[in-house]
Amino acid sequence: MVDPKLEEVIQFERTRPDVHGDAHPKKLLRAIVEEGNHLAKLSEQHIFSSDQFDRATLLQLFRLAAKYEANPGRFSTSLNGQILISAFYEPSTRTRLSFESAWHRLGGDIMSITDRSTTGIAKGESLRDVAEMFNNYGDCVVLRDSNEESVREMMAALRIPIINAGNGTDEHPTQALADLYTIFKWRPDLVTNEPGEKLKLCLVGLPAKMRTVRSLLKLMCHFPDVFSKITIVNDKQKNEMFAHGQLAQLEQAGLQIDAANDLYEVLPEADVVYINAIAWEGNAYKQYGKRYHLNAQSPLKSDAIVLHPLARSVELCTSLDDTPHNWYFSQARGAVFLRMALLTCLVKRAERVLDVI
Amino acid sequence: MVDPKLEEVIQFERTRPDVHGDAHPKKLLRAIVEEGNHLAKLSEQHIFSSDQFDRATLLQLFRLAAKYEANPGRFSTSLNGQILISAFYEPSTRTRLSFESAWHRLGGDIMSITDRSTTGIAKGESLRDVAEMFNNYGDCVVLRDSNEESVREMMAALRIPIINAGNGTDEHPTQALADLYTIFKWRPDLVTNEPGEKLKLCLVGLPAKMRTVRSLLKLMCHFPDVFSKITIVNDKQKNEMFAHGQLAQLEQAGLQIDAANDLYEVLPEADVVYINAIAWEGNAYKQYGKRYHLNAQSPLKSDAIVLHPLARSVELCTSLDDTPHNWYFSQARGAVFLRMALLTCLVKRAERVLDVI
Amino acid sequence: MVDPKLEEVIQFERTRPDVHGDAHPKKLLRAIVEEGNHLAKLSEQHIFSSDQFDRATLLQLFRLAAKYEANPGRFSTSLNGQILISAFYEPSTRTRLSFESAWHRLGGDIMSITDRSTTGIAKGESLRDVAEMFNNYGDCVVLRDSNEESVREMMAALRIPIINAGNGTDEHPTQALADLYTIFKWRPDLVTNEPGEKLKLCLVGLPAKMRTVRSLLKLMCHFPDVFSKITIVNDKQKNEMFAHGQLAQLEQAGLQIDAANDLYEVLPEADVVYINAIAWEGNAYKQYGKRYHLNAQSPLKSDAIVLHPLARSVELCTSLDDTPHNWYFSQARGAVFLRMALLTCLVKRAERVLDVI
Repeated sequence: MVDPKLEEVIQFERTRPDVHGDAHPKKLLRAIVEEGNHLAKLSEQHIFSSDQFDRATLLQLFRLAAKYEANPGRFSTSLNGQILISAFYEPSTRTRLSFESAWHRLGGDIMSITDRSTTGIAKGESLRDVAEMFNNYGDCVVLRDSNEESVREMMAALRIPIINAGNGTDEHPTQALADLYTIFKWRPDLVTNEPGEKLKLCLVGLPAKMRTVRSLLKLMCHFPDVFSKITIVNDKQKNEMFAHGQLAQLEQAGLQIDAANDLYEVLPEADVVYINAIAWEGNAYKQYGKRYHLNAQSPLKSDAIVLHPLARSVELCTSLDDTPHNWYFSQARGAVFLRMALLTCLVKRAERVLDVI
Repeated sequence: MVDPKLEEVIQFERTRPDVHGDAHPKKLLRAIVEEGNHLAKLSEQHIFSSDQFDRATLLQLFRLAAKYEANPGRFSTSLNGQILISAFYEPSTRTRLSFESAWHRLGGDIMSITDRSTTGIAKGESLRDVAEMFNNYGDCVVLRDSNEESVREMMAALRIPIINAGNGTDEHPTQALADLYTIFKWRPDLVTNEPGEKLKLCLVGLPAKMRTVRSLLKLMCHFPDVFSKITIVNDKQKNEMFAHGQLAQLEQAGLQIDAANDLYEVLPEADVVYINAIAWEGNAYKQYGKRYHLNAQSPLKSDAIVLHPLARSVELCTSLDDTPHNWYFSQARGAVFLRMALLTCLVKRAERVLDVI
Repeated sequence: MVDPKLEEVIQFERTRPDVHGDAHPKKLLRAIVEEGNHLAKLSEQHIFSSDQFDRATLLQLFRLAAKYEANPGRFSTSLNGQILISAFYEPSTRTRLSFESAWHRLGGDIMSITDRSTTGIAKGESLRDVAEMFNNYGDCVVLRDSNEESVREMMAALRIPIINAGNGTDEHPTQALADLYTIFKWRPDLVTNEPGEKLKLCLVGLPAKMRTVRSLLKLMCHFPDVFSKITIVNDKQKNEMFAHGQLAQLEQAGLQIDAANDLYEVLPEADVVYINAIAWEGNAYKQYGKRYHLNAQSPLKSDAIVLHPLARSVELCTSLDDTPHNWYFSQARGAVFLRMALLTCLVKRAERVLDVI
């Protein structure tokens, strides 16, 4: 017989407990009416910045993501014959696997580049020539590069769509889409005609330097009716927290932006707590806000949800993992479906999955 | 016309000569009756250690592997829609390609991680968080890591199955499964009601340090009726050859374990000679037993078979490659089918390939 | 509304202007009659050197490539169930993606090795053993290695076909096939019974050291009726430009080979200008012919076409990109279809795509 201690170690369960962020996407599906025409423009645009979306397109993207999440195995041939070039010049496994998983789930093929030094760039090749090469070999590109300008140079020469999966400290639009998708799965009423209480969002991070934060704040500009207040928490003064013009854009959109240094003063009234502690700068990770920690003892509202783009370190304690506050795992899971929705539109396959064309 | 010397260099044959370990798997298929219920438990277990198997499950795995080997192209859609995360943090091409080939042959999709430094671990991410990420992005994981504990940490958080493809010096269970599968393809009578002569096995290697050897000896514990004697050959004293508790486990299972320093004294009576010379320790390969060599002049029994987990170096001379003793190439080939069988069970697709469900 | 400057950056077009080398492959399709029997020998040969082809086989390969290029999505299941081992031990993204794209377009599966240090070679494994491993795990191999002899050692032990994708400074046969395919798409009359004017080709490069050039010159030996003169341009004396025996082979085939140091003297009468400036030597790229540059002001014939195997640097100026001389992008695009044709034949799937079997 097998040693009971070994038996315990090797047994596993496939199901997950419901309390950890599993609001069924069906609620969001029902909350938004399908209007596929708002997705049409996505088939002729690169995905570069959160600034390029409008509210109607966002809602349809979230609806399509919810459709995928509610029927995970149904659309497994939608991207048949399509090739994704997965180019991660800056180290990443999480985002790369998230995109590659999304593309596989829809039946497409993938070519990966994970080492910048093997590319023609080592031979002195220009990014425009790399883009022309991609035009001939694939149907869609995902790029992460610590060099902020690489994606711009490539967009100028590409005739297939590219998704910016993180360019230096600038933006990471699909992460922001996934974050907002998670919030609306939790509170689908907020995108209906009968929304409930608006949300107070506490954001622990540095908007000037963190691309995930920059992209998310921009997306929230389309939903000033959803967020009553956004409080940015870090150890800087308010006039040092933002990049040039960043705060102005948010306020012009109608968002109420506060700043605070004391996390525990903000938490008790926050409905959503978003926390991130690292930024990729130059060619290394830098930690910001070391003194801000969330754990099971933090003074969170009883029904507050916590989001984190991951990877996390000490700023988000594992003691929160088994509490109902944990929506960061759901956030990662939903990101695959969100990316499935976006990729489908980019390569003009939306007509295979929408009900009305 | 093409230069004859060039013609000779570029021409190749697809078929292989029968003498080199091509016992048709059909003999083993007939020797074991299909009893698929013994495979059921494999759909809720990680594959971590040779200790977790029982004899009935092993025989059904070998039977399913033989079924795949006898009909290599028949089940090419069995893993449709399934994603494998192939994580090889310790350098390997052989084992990685063996698993990836198995998964492709069954129609599944693959995401590879071959560079530990690109993972979140570089960002200070815990293995439990890496496991949670894998839960969201794939259906099965294969992991090789020189850090022995990594797989344990991941098993605790994974809700999809993981196969330990080598954890430091600890274990490499699927290699052992492939080794035993090869032995039973050679002598299928040994698993029937009318077995022939038992086997004397000569094992050149260091049980304390070589994970392939450790895993194989454990599996042999389920077949004390098959092996009359196992002689371990290396340059150490018997009390230094084994890790703590290792020899006791083998003897309690009814195996007769001898030790010897002189290879040429043991060879003339060995039916199976298993040889391995390297172990992965820390972060480099270490050679053991440099003075033990097998070649075509070694005093092997005329019908003895030689096994080696590969890669090999000087310890197994190429002069044996074209002799009937060469079952190490067959061992590598059969490993793909064995892994196909195991992977099929892990992701609950066995019902697509078994005759009786 | 979206900022117009952003809108401009993210919008893209999928179509390409016709002037840049888009001679429809249908012209070449009509110019060559299908005679599939000439492709039969490709199913039992490794693809090692340009020397191994004959004229009839080349024409059929070009025809099959043109068939693929004219019907890009039609044959998307031809390589179902086939596994390619894509082994690029010398840094490359361009050639690797070209092959992988070709294999994906035909519905096959791929396993990539991009880091020599992870292979058994790091464990002291021989190339013959690596080949035997490949025999068990895949159906076709593509190999690039700065070590010129690696592919020879592997061919001796492989029972599946291997394509030499560049071995040191020796050869790169599929690049040459793609180059000649491009020339014949441009001037299909040259392979008919009523050819027009022969071509004068100007080749800027070093035949002794550049594998793309070496392979291309060899292929041109089968078409002395197509090229009236080939002028090699570099900064060496004629007796230093060629490797031992290289010039003799070309002249014996009936090619008229001139040499020159002054590019601008040769250009005005060249119909085809082929330029390359780098060679891989040892384990780094070396630049040759730094003083030879082509740009929009170069004295090219008005209808001359320019070819470059890419990656390029300053020797081929981007000012030529938007001129009708630019056939180097078409060259890269056609290379995928040429590789699709060759790979189909190698794994014995030509009968799935030929009209007459």
